[in-house]
Amino acid sequence: MADKTLDDLFLDTLKDIYYAERQIVKTLPKMAKAATSPELKAGFEQHQQETEVQIERLQQIFELLGKPARGKTCDAILGIIEEGKSIIEEYEGSSALDAGLVAAGQAVEHYEIARYGTLKAWATQLGMDEAMTLLDATLQEEIATDLKLTEVGTAKVNQKAA
Amino acid sequence: MADKTLDDLFLDTLKDIYYAERQIVKTLPKMAKAATSPELKAGFEQHQQETEVQIERLQQIFELLGKPARGKTCDAILGIIEEGKSIIEEYEGSSALDAGLVAAGQAVEHYEIARYGTLKAWATQLGMDEAMTLLDATLQEEIATDLKLTEVGTAKVNQKAA
Repeated sequence: MADKTLDDLFLDTLKDIYYAERQIVKTLPKMAKAATSPELKAGFEQHQQETEVQIERLQQIFELLGKPARGKTCDAILGIIEEGKSIIEEYEGSSALDAGLVAAGQAVEHYEIARYGTLKAWATQLGMDEAMTLLDATLQEEIATDLKLTEVGTAKVNQKAA
Repeated sequence: MADKTLDDLFLDTLKDIYYAERQIVKTLPKMAKAATSPELKAGFEQHQQETEVQIERLQQIFELLGKPARGKTCDAILGIIEEGKSIIEEYEGSSALDAGLVAAGQAVEHYEIARYGTLKAWATQLGMDEAMTLLDATLQEEIATDLKLTEVGTAKVNQKAA
């Protein structure tokens, strides 16, 4: 069996985040619908549009690698989304729902920050400059979304929930 | 039915991360054992000791709330750990194993950073100063561990894997 290298790991992880993003883009409209704060609703809607572009960036990277864009079941994002669903079910109609949605959104963002940070470091190591630039663009959006969720939480949502 | 508030959400999320930490403390020895880089092995071992203290801090917070320390199944961490196990199985004996372990470790750290960041913000909102201090101590350790993994990755492990 040939040795597995960083190229294999890069492709496997690209498939993982590609699967994850396609789950996330289906979940964000549900989170936007559930949110009662207009700022939070708008935040989820904006991030859904960003996520569509992020999926296109991943497709470009598959193309750069000469591989078909194909996902690989990502248990992590399935678990994270499952917890978000439980929040909606258990807190619907309560003062704390929006605070729970912010937390669920930040768990998603941090998973993405971890994966894009890793992929960017590997692209750098592999000398894949174009992929690195695409991955960094998405990474910066995920970091900005996480910060925006922190702001909505502390400035608006947590106070209402307390 | 009484309205659910931030107090309920705080307790539910405390149970979530308590469950998660107890899974993590069982997983870190397996990651340390699998790692081939001495720096990475030492990093996982050190973080296991930190995690034991972090579990005690969570127990202190349950005590402050006058509630029994009890976990609640956390699908997110189960999914994240499952992906780490797949990395060990699929990359064992290969040049890229350590790079995969760094990535798996950073996914765990980012889940914890999300959860502790959220809990700290909620403790602040709820005026729970003592809990806030305990949560912040752990949050800073998680951020430091994530940075250390980035360093081991870029300085040592990724190059070997490439």
